[in-house]
Amino acid sequence: MASNRPEVPLRKLMGPGPLNIHPRVFQALTSPVLGHLDPAHLEVLDHIGERLRMVFKTQNRITNATPGTGTSGMETCVTNLLEPGDRVLACVHGYFGDRIRQMAERQEAEITLIEGEWGKPTDPERVEKALKEGPYKVITLVHAETSTGVLQPMDEIASLAKAHGAMIILDTVTSLGGIEVKADDWGLDAAYSCSQKCIGCPSGLAPVTFSDRAIESAKKRKHPIRSWYLDILLLDKYWGSERVYHHTSSSTLCAALLEALLLIEEEGLENRYARHLKNHQALVAGIEAMGLKMAVSPEYRLPTLNTVQVPKGVDDVKVRGYLLQKFNLEIGGGLGAFKGKVWRVGLMGYSSSAENVLFFLSALSRALTLEGFNTDLKTGLDAAMSALDA
Amino acid sequence: MASNRPEVPLRKLMGPGPLNIHPRVFQALTSPVLGHLDPAHLEVLDHIGERLRMVFKTQNRITNATPGTGTSGMETCVTNLLEPGDRVLACVHGYFGDRIRQMAERQEAEITLIEGEWGKPTDPERVEKALKEGPYKVITLVHAETSTGVLQPMDEIASLAKAHGAMIILDTVTSLGGIEVKADDWGLDAAYSCSQKCIGCPSGLAPVTFSDRAIESAKKRKHPIRSWYLDILLLDKYWGSERVYHHTSSSTLCAALLEALLLIEEEGLENRYARHLKNHQALVAGIEAMGLKMAVSPEYRLPTLNTVQVPKGVDDVKVRGYLLQKFNLEIGGGLGAFKGKVWRVGLMGYSSSAENVLFFLSALSRALTLEGFNTDLKTGLDAAMSALDA
Repeated sequence: MASNRPEVPLRKLMGPGPLNIHPRVFQALTSPVLGHLDPAHLEVLDHIGERLRMVFKTQNRITNATPGTGTSGMETCVTNLLEPGDRVLACVHGYFGDRIRQMAERQEAEITLIEGEWGKPTDPERVEKALKEGPYKVITLVHAETSTGVLQPMDEIASLAKAHGAMIILDTVTSLGGIEVKADDWGLDAAYSCSQKCIGCPSGLAPVTFSDRAIESAKKRKHPIRSWYLDILLLDKYWGSERVYHHTSSSTLCAALLEALLLIEEEGLENRYARHLKNHQALVAGIEAMGLKMAVSPEYRLPTLNTVQVPKGVDDVKVRGYLLQKFNLEIGGGLGAFKGKVWRVGLMGYSSSAENVLFFLSALSRALTLEGFNTDLKTGLDAAMSALDA
Repeated sequence: MASNRPEVPLRKLMGPGPLNIHPRVFQALTSPVLGHLDPAHLEVLDHIGERLRMVFKTQNRITNATPGTGTSGMETCVTNLLEPGDRVLACVHGYFGDRIRQMAERQEAEITLIEGEWGKPTDPERVEKALKEGPYKVITLVHAETSTGVLQPMDEIASLAKAHGAMIILDTVTSLGGIEVKADDWGLDAAYSCSQKCIGCPSGLAPVTFSDRAIESAKKRKHPIRSWYLDILLLDKYWGSERVYHHTSSSTLCAALLEALLLIEEEGLENRYARHLKNHQALVAGIEAMGLKMAVSPEYRLPTLNTVQVPKGVDDVKVRGYLLQKFNLEIGGGLGAFKGKVWRVGLMGYSSSAENVLFFLSALSRALTLEGFNTDLKTGLDAAMSALDA
């Protein structure tokens, strides 16, 4: 191993995340370091809570960011709400739904699985049928399945959960800040996300929100929660008015997260959703005009994470390697059942831009040509630009 | 709440951590963002592993940084090594030893407590007596107790553990990079630290190292580990040669950690220990010459975290508030049994400097004068400077 520091290339990040970040977020990363109990840092945490309530569309008092990546947010929700013997309805139609299921299993919860096809959302009818045979304490769902590019419609399942008194844990990792999340309207009891996708910050923090009912449930546990680090009642003592030391909150990452949230506030959530949608539509228009196919049918496509089918005979790994080597462009490969079958193209946060759409189409077209798969780039770019003009 | 961003003051950080960071570490925080599977980022992780092996003085293959604060490192060690019914000997003489005990309790381990006086280390004789009545799977110890400023001598206890076949989990949060840690010589099975103290980086990452024996023990568990996020076998699949996606490693924090570790490498570990020791000796000389008292007897004092007794009649909170308001100087208050009784003054990493020693003595003297407690600052500064010249 060389003794010098490795070279850090300047990538164009268009995978499942992290994405590139706004210069103001970069600048915030170099804010002076603050102690975790410094009044100035506690004020930053309060501002983060306030803005996260805005993006989650919730009044939940307990709304802040756990000190870890999105997966720490997932674990915070699952471990606080589930204990041995709890009945949980796990809706799985992709890699991350399954990760939640694995976590629930580790809590020794009693799991009923609704396993759906990769590339489609969970059918509310199956949820209804299961709930009638219930009861269930918790339903776990993925709003935006990062492994497949599928959006889970929430209204119907939210009503069903309410009618049957089941709590909902929702993964909003690839939606929060880019697609509407309505935590209160949907009656979510626990939801989590990450900092590095539509929020537009580097990774390392996980926005979470807990309803009062979820907190009551955590307080009434029969078995103490195994995790000390992710115990929501201990986190609340730090985030809330008691300010009891729990962990050394990273003022650096928190300053960056707050700046990213202020950028969201300035843009306006509705404008931001519209921007994500328009750039997604342009990408799809270009992809389809170039003779390629999306992996998900139009009504369930995520505007934030686009899954493009790898054409027959094209080497997935070679194409991604070429894009990285020649263009410093990162896109994601498929996970699990979609391995080798799709490319995952992220248009999230600061990275959801017309520039990125056009750059990606051009670079991909070139990569495919080298693989012997010819596309009409001009037609693709024209279609994308028409969609951008619409 | 104001809609604008809160002001972030430029503090002089001399508490228990975080501390101020070197300009090169600041610069590294703004390295281009990289994906968690980018070959360039994986190379950064390898470099981090290599340098952490240097600071831990270990050959352990599984040595890297967990994606969270120091407490995530503690939980990674405790939850992976302990399962229900495991016998653990918990040595507690401060707040952090007790935090480990709490975590072991949540794993439903069978705990034997060696509770020691705050301000003193654990007596090896008590450990020997307990081990003879054993067996124990694990001994938990704190090398540098951040709540009291006490250094735990390790040689004798390490020999005892070896003789009795017990594993050791060691907290090196306030020692790693500032005081010698000899993971292999002491036969540590799991040790953890944090990024924001003697390592000299912002908080958010927790260096950990696991022996082969510890990994074997994790593989042979009867009860699966509850945590998915901190499962060392899953972390190893990402850190190691398999490169299986586990979490979205923060390239930003990792770049900063690597830069901090390169600074350690350039300075040399032995020089770094000597610098920490000299600045500590200067601080103690100044404190004592000013008529104040240290809380720990000389043979057990940490060079990194100095506990100074709050003089009778002096208002702890007022003094710390004055230092923060007037001098932007953060020092720590006491925790637990030491609440209101000591100040905790950190001299760690980049913040362990002659400048900080002299500044602190001057500011403290002024604060004490306003509290009606007069000190002879000139004598204090002379004593500190003589120690610096020695």
